[in-house]
Amino acid sequence: MSMSQRVDSRTRDLVDKSTRQILKASISPQDDIIAERSRATFDALQMCYALNGGKDKIQRRAQLVEALKRTSWGNKERRHFMTREEEYVEALRASFGIWEKMKQEKMSLEDGVTMRSLVDFPGGLELHIGMFIPSILSQGTPEQQQHWLPLCYDLSIIGTYAQTELGHGTFVRGLETTATYDKTTQEFVLHSPTLTSTKWWPGGLGKTATHAVVMARLFIDGKDYGPHAFVVQVRSLQDHLPLPGICVGDIGPKFGYGGVDNGYLAMDHLRISRESMLMRYSKVLPDGTYVPPPPSNAKASYATMVYVRADIVKNAGSVLAKAVTIATRYAAVRRQTAPSPGQPETQVLDYQNTSHTLLPLVAAAYAVHFMGETIMGMYKRFDKDRERGEFSSLPELHALSSGCKALCTWITADGIESCRRTCGGHGYSKLPGLPTLFQNYVQNVTWEGDNNVLCLQTARYLLKALVGVQRGQQATGSASYLNHAAAELHAKSAVQGASGWNAHALQSAMRHCATRLAASATAMLQSASRSAAGASSRAAGGLVFEGPAWNNSTVAMIKLTRAHCMAELHSNMLSSITALHSSGKVGGRELAVLQQLASLFALTHIEAHMGDYLEDGYFTGAQAASIRQRQNALLLELRPNAVALVDAFGIEDYVLNSALGRQDGDVYTALLDMAQGSPLNSSQEGPAWHTVLKPVMVKHSKM
Amino acid sequence: MSMSQRVDSRTRDLVDKSTRQILKASISPQDDIIAERSRATFDALQMCYALNGGKDKIQRRAQLVEALKRTSWGNKERRHFMTREEEYVEALRASFGIWEKMKQEKMSLEDGVTMRSLVDFPGGLELHIGMFIPSILSQGTPEQQQHWLPLCYDLSIIGTYAQTELGHGTFVRGLETTATYDKTTQEFVLHSPTLTSTKWWPGGLGKTATHAVVMARLFIDGKDYGPHAFVVQVRSLQDHLPLPGICVGDIGPKFGYGGVDNGYLAMDHLRISRESMLMRYSKVLPDGTYVPPPPSNAKASYATMVYVRADIVKNAGSVLAKAVTIATRYAAVRRQTAPSPGQPETQVLDYQNTSHTLLPLVAAAYAVHFMGETIMGMYKRFDKDRERGEFSSLPELHALSSGCKALCTWITADGIESCRRTCGGHGYSKLPGLPTLFQNYVQNVTWEGDNNVLCLQTARYLLKALVGVQRGQQATGSASYLNHAAAELHAKSAVQGASGWNAHALQSAMRHCATRLAASATAMLQSASRSAAGASSRAAGGLVFEGPAWNNSTVAMIKLTRAHCMAELHSNMLSSITALHSSGKVGGRELAVLQQLASLFALTHIEAHMGDYLEDGYFTGAQAASIRQRQNALLLELRPNAVALVDAFGIEDYVLNSALGRQDGDVYTALLDMAQGSPLNSSQEGPAWHTVLKPVMVKHSKM
Repeated sequence: MSMSQRVDSRTRDLVDKSTRQILKASISPQDDIIAERSRATFDALQMCYALNGGKDKIQRRAQLVEALKRTSWGNKERRHFMTREEEYVEALRASFGIWEKMKQEKMSLEDGVTMRSLVDFPGGLELHIGMFIPSILSQGTPEQQQHWLPLCYDLSIIGTYAQTELGHGTFVRGLETTATYDKTTQEFVLHSPTLTSTKWWPGGLGKTATHAVVMARLFIDGKDYGPHAFVVQVRSLQDHLPLPGICVGDIGPKFGYGGVDNGYLAMDHLRISRESMLMRYSKVLPDGTYVPPPPSNAKASYATMVYVRADIVKNAGSVLAKAVTIATRYAAVRRQTAPSPGQPETQVLDYQNTSHTLLPLVAAAYAVHFMGETIMGMYKRFDKDRERGEFSSLPELHALSSGCKALCTWITADGIESCRRTCGGHGYSKLPGLPTLFQNYVQNVTWEGDNNVLCLQTARYLLKALVGVQRGQQATGSASYLNHAAAELHAKSAVQGASGWNAHALQSAMRHCATRLAASATAMLQSASRSAAGASSRAAGGLVFEGPAWNNSTVAMIKLTRAHCMAELHSNMLSSITALHSSGKVGGRELAVLQQLASLFALTHIEAHMGDYLEDGYFTGAQAASIRQRQNALLLELRPNAVALVDAFGIEDYVLNSALGRQDGDVYTALLDMAQGSPLNSSQEGPAWHTVLKPVMVKHSKM
Repeated sequence: MSMSQRVDSRTRDLVDKSTRQILKASISPQDDIIAERSRATFDALQMCYALNGGKDKIQRRAQLVEALKRTSWGNKERRHFMTREEEYVEALRASFGIWEKMKQEKMSLEDGVTMRSLVDFPGGLELHIGMFIPSILSQGTPEQQQHWLPLCYDLSIIGTYAQTELGHGTFVRGLETTATYDKTTQEFVLHSPTLTSTKWWPGGLGKTATHAVVMARLFIDGKDYGPHAFVVQVRSLQDHLPLPGICVGDIGPKFGYGGVDNGYLAMDHLRISRESMLMRYSKVLPDGTYVPPPPSNAKASYATMVYVRADIVKNAGSVLAKAVTIATRYAAVRRQTAPSPGQPETQVLDYQNTSHTLLPLVAAAYAVHFMGETIMGMYKRFDKDRERGEFSSLPELHALSSGCKALCTWITADGIESCRRTCGGHGYSKLPGLPTLFQNYVQNVTWEGDNNVLCLQTARYLLKALVGVQRGQQATGSASYLNHAAAELHAKSAVQGASGWNAHALQSAMRHCATRLAASATAMLQSASRSAAGASSRAAGGLVFEGPAWNNSTVAMIKLTRAHCMAELHSNMLSSITALHSSGKVGGRELAVLQQLASLFALTHIEAHMGDYLEDGYFTGAQAASIRQRQNALLLELRPNAVALVDAFGIEDYVLNSALGRQDGDVYTALLDMAQGSPLNSSQEGPAWHTVLKPVMVKHSKM
């Protein structure tokens, strides 16, 4: 930026007098953020190590960041300015770059995963790594694995996973793509019989993948055996053109995820060999005999879903941590409105409505982080158990991971946008990174199980548990508080005064609320089920989990799951921070702040759903008011630690790539510097001058 | 899309057997939407005329749509696929196209406004039309108007309005750009003394505008007279290059609004003539004497803000109408999950959680629409009054428009995203239009007064009104319900059973709630004000509206404004629909549906904030439950009218430009057709094959 011109000294003197008056009022954002850090009551670095698995991991990340910055594909300077095509090409280059770097430097898989998260540029290889290879590993026979996996690992082929169709997502049994077995040739004929059967959404399918695991309804001798998995080659390995009988392409722009070429696929009577069906479990013999999968297979595929959902919960915590890091640092250095003339302007974080938005989201980022760790740990224990045929923890794990996937992705998606809005005008710019974070994140509420549908699954689990308890059975795991339902339904909170809202009182309140919502949802569904004509097929304890009775109760069911999972997030945070302290990973000062955060998390949830606590008289009006008092007091108690709490997430400037989230607080310089990269600035007169503006504006040029 | 290959008849027969089984289950979306329309209990076309100002207007819109479609700049086929530069250039072309068409065909201003909303492509001329010309009209002297306006009207110059700076948005008094008067030359020296004084955000400033109305702090003889408006030329009219002393450019990509070149501007000791200051009100005489504006000027600038906010409310209604049109039509044709094998799958709109999201948003779109009409009408009456110096309705209008701007933009911004999520996976595609609608809309919660700040202004008005009432004065206008505050605070709802929730009962409940929140916010601020040391400067009725006492009360204040404006939206909708019916614009069947919508709007708000109605005992727990019962019953009652209710908004397919929102329901064909336009599909092998994929994938090419 240059506008140099000669200015005479008289003009300079004249203006300097005005300038001095302006400068009196200004405080630099860098000074502000230094002051913020000095106010912290705990050791942010120790907290950072505790949250991130130790000092070694943080140091390794730092090394990798330095290495990545220096690569052409890891450099992020142009990331905010790319067209969709550039995003697609550059994201692939980045994926390939990581792949090559791992090979050349013989790096660990963990380093590879870390690099992917640091570069943070999803592209056409996502489903090759995340779904195609895992599908072959889990559903392929040893021969199939030997055939396909080496080709996958050296990128001779690139795969994707094609399940979703134009007309079917959630309801997998409704898929319309057919795979008809032809005994005479021992082939399957893959076909897309309707427009709505067109495969739609698979990542990498548009322009990258050469192969796909295609889910299709298996037909043998006119009989429908339901969805099965087939490996289908869609593009030539020589010229990358679609093979005959294949119609494939990109589905067009999306809210975010521009680097990924989500694709469509229609097949026209496409013949593939019998060996193309993944036959580790179900099989089709040459003569057309169908061999069904062993019963444990259903459980195994549940296990995969659980893993994916646990991973989404873990990811939700880290994405929300990014958003609150950006917004909190900016709110600490942004000053707006002087209380009276001559006074310094107020830091935006000192307005109650800002801290009332941001600090609970910081607390939520911690709560979701701990839940991610816990669910992933549960999954790993289960994974060991199942090697010896032990599946007993699966229903609990499935219910918890489904509900928490829904709740945590809602918290994060909505949280990013709330963070963005606290940044005021500058939050609307892409340079701070929050719009892109939101655009790339929000599909998490839909994919891998639509959140509402997942909530219904968890609610069903809870209702069955409660009906079991009512019949004298014992509820276990996260539902075990339902064992006390009978007494709980008549309980009242005994808390007196704002100071009474300790961790135990908050936890009791949240569990009471979940118990009551479970009881009323059960009663509602029992009543609706009775009146539903002829509904008995899947009745359990007088409950019909389908049809109009169920469809007209879903609001209460979703509400129940939210309340249940919120209580779980809170109690899990309490036990996680206690464990961190007992193991010496954090000291007493860190524990104290974490306990405040856990309380703020619970209080904020309760405050936002106060009606649920008042409706049955569990809370009095005075207790409701004291919840707000305690919450407001906590906001002030936590205020000095705000910046240190987001520092403790340890997210590098390289990862944030944000003009407002930078560690040093120099936000305005960053905005101005980054804006220079805007493609519109590549010429001084701009891209419309010669073609649009000049012909109209300069009249004599027309004469 | 073509994948033609020869298929032998045996294969065809084999596959046809599978296909027939698939086809049994499918229902076409076109049939679904026809069936939906036939279920309506009211006349959607009559409703459409009533909402849109009559049959003539709808017919004129249709004519304009046909004309626009045929122009190169009004055609929307490529709209979803543009790069930022293309968006900028094409949006300008569209603006110029409308301008020229109006001139050539001697069209009315109203036609021009209509065309702008139909083309719906904000670009670099927004602030020329919306701010530069109006500023000169309202703040320029007759001579200045004669000089500038003809140049504006024939686009010899293009202007913008530069107020916001990197460091200052909301707090206008804090602007840092200086305009120092130089008596000796009778010039102002415009200067950007700090990094944070860089003008930032003005639309069109980046690469389009040649001139800007610049807000700068006026200094004369070292004295600061605060912000004043100056016309500054920033670019040459010959070659469009920035003039000496000017640094100007594009601020980079934003969440949305890619067609607009929001810009930055820094000035280095830039001399402009004394006549460049807009001097209709304040003046600087040649000798440096400052002539302050007459007192009515402040009121006039309030009036401009009121107009802008009223316009935003009106716009909020039409944007939300678009979102619910898309989502409701799609939810009516999307089917997912068969209740049991062999049965048709359920329309997504028949899941309670979907209708519980969508139908209240349909209701909100109606409520916001009516509020937009009302506020605009109030503004127009005020505008007539002020010509004769009558400003008495301004405080009420200012408070109402501020709070409603905040509330209605929140409803719409959050509503678009909720609509998007009900569309499941396809909602994430840009082709249905909801992502872009959200991206282009959300800055409305921030600009023209940040919503939180506006809520505080309305809250201050309400608190002053309540303190006035407590002192025996009469509250007027929208605050007049506060006259009954003393009695209201002890009131209980007398409603029995779900059927008791008629319009009057709902309105009483909402006003009771707002009264109680006003009383508790007043008490809270009075108490905080007492303890705030030395705070007395602006105390009114023991209330200090600034400093820590105020900053630590903002959550309660914002909550109060929301409750107040919700009650206003509801009561305004009731009176608006009564008026429509009395004037014969709608019949009894239409009125009945509108009344149901008004009730649903109120019930949904109350249900979401139930704690506020239970805390003081106004509701019992049983009444809370009956609110939900009534709400659920209404969802079922309104369900058959869902599609007709969005049809009645009368939004053309051309305007929606949405694969899922189309009138004919043919959503899957549209998705597939529109996807063909994706730039990634311009070659079969895709843009990464030769440069990225082939070198790695095809091994022999490396040997």
